[in-house]
Amino acid sequence: MIRVVILGFGKVGRHLAIAFNDAPEIQVVQIYNRSARNEPVELTDIPFTDDLSRLEEADIYIMAVPDDFIGTFSDEIPKIPGILVHTSGGVDLSAINPKHQRGVFYPLQSFSETGKARFKEIPMCLEAENPEALEKLTRLARSISEKVETITSEERAKLHLAAVFVNNFVNHLYYISDQYLAVNDLDFELLKPLINETARKMETLIPVEAQTGPAVRKDQKTIQKHLELLNDSPFKNLYIQLTTAIQETHGKKL
Amino acid sequence: MIRVVILGFGKVGRHLAIAFNDAPEIQVVQIYNRSARNEPVELTDIPFTDDLSRLEEADIYIMAVPDDFIGTFSDEIPKIPGILVHTSGGVDLSAINPKHQRGVFYPLQSFSETGKARFKEIPMCLEAENPEALEKLTRLARSISEKVETITSEERAKLHLAAVFVNNFVNHLYYISDQYLAVNDLDFELLKPLINETARKMETLIPVEAQTGPAVRKDQKTIQKHLELLNDSPFKNLYIQLTTAIQETHGKKL
Repeated sequence: MIRVVILGFGKVGRHLAIAFNDAPEIQVVQIYNRSARNEPVELTDIPFTDDLSRLEEADIYIMAVPDDFIGTFSDEIPKIPGILVHTSGGVDLSAINPKHQRGVFYPLQSFSETGKARFKEIPMCLEAENPEALEKLTRLARSISEKVETITSEERAKLHLAAVFVNNFVNHLYYISDQYLAVNDLDFELLKPLINETARKMETLIPVEAQTGPAVRKDQKTIQKHLELLNDSPFKNLYIQLTTAIQETHGKKL
Repeated sequence: MIRVVILGFGKVGRHLAIAFNDAPEIQVVQIYNRSARNEPVELTDIPFTDDLSRLEEADIYIMAVPDDFIGTFSDEIPKIPGILVHTSGGVDLSAINPKHQRGVFYPLQSFSETGKARFKEIPMCLEAENPEALEKLTRLARSISEKVETITSEERAKLHLAAVFVNNFVNHLYYISDQYLAVNDLDFELLKPLINETARKMETLIPVEAQTGPAVRKDQKTIQKHLELLNDSPFKNLYIQLTTAIQETHGKKL
């Protein structure tokens, strides 16, 4: 049995608590949050505290707090008997106060406020300062996910940067489409099957093979038409940048 | 029974032929291609021709050819008894030679070489020159899809432009991640659950609500770290453009 304390009950903390609560070999012994929060019904049996001086004994303490708070929060946490990990993609392990046994427990996923995360498929990216700690984190990660990876802080930063492209930036392209269609009285709903299929293709194709459209076809007539449609639009510049980027990428291979 | 001839047996032609072949109220009476092509086994019973002067009689003739060929191909097609449609998002109905009864039958999807398309969910965007023709195209579209829309050439061009953002441009962001990770000996596979989830969120959230990450958080520390990681990278400029675009979008609401 691995005993876990969840420190911070935002989106990530809640999703992790729910997943661990379902794992037979894990016991969530306490949830800390600096202010009281409504817990989902399945977690109401877990003791709650808003007092860092009253943390329970556990094997692993998971800080699920915003990136900027990781350092100062780890300073405030008194010396504890277990490993203290953060859950961030972009923050170095060394941001955690060295008075602790330190580690990283980074689920490579973007969580929603609602719904249940499918942890089984989520890559858990782990880092620790010694093999014993890594082994404990690995056991914890395997209790909820089938994809457990050990990676360094440096690798994790790169993975996080790549994740920004496929998640944050992709979502902004969804936003642009949504806005453009709204202004033109057209329904974003119509694009949803295409959005799904674009992602789904990555199951069987590599991105360079999956590239289609006017840019890669060098279909200047359609590109010109699009630029006319985007005249005076705030999105015109990105259209040009991305079209150029695709043409440069695929031009190289000719 | 609606009789259909498929003109052009590339990706779109093949996917449509397979879907129509499964629809009880549709009969694919002929497939034309300018050169012989291997047909999937389920279509080998359908008569094939490479001679435009020998087209069968049908209600609807579907040109599934590249955008640039639609005009000249429609010139070459002799006068036929049915409606002649193209399947393109970006081409005006008027590109078809006016000697024909003209229409558009645009499946808003990006098709793969392999696999079976899930037409039931694919929006079919229709256009015709008179109500009778539109009614026929609607019956044909409803035989394979639950989402049938009548839209003008002008609206279709806008929809196609929006599709370029969520499909072609999104795929290029996948490509960038893939390349960046490859150069750094990291596995793109790790991002696939995130890619899926990013698309899946559109089922329940609007894009502006789903935006997360350092740009929207105005997390300059992480952004700075990413820019250092991207130093000398061809992707740095797009990172800056997209981060700025997100910050401008979300800054407006403060």
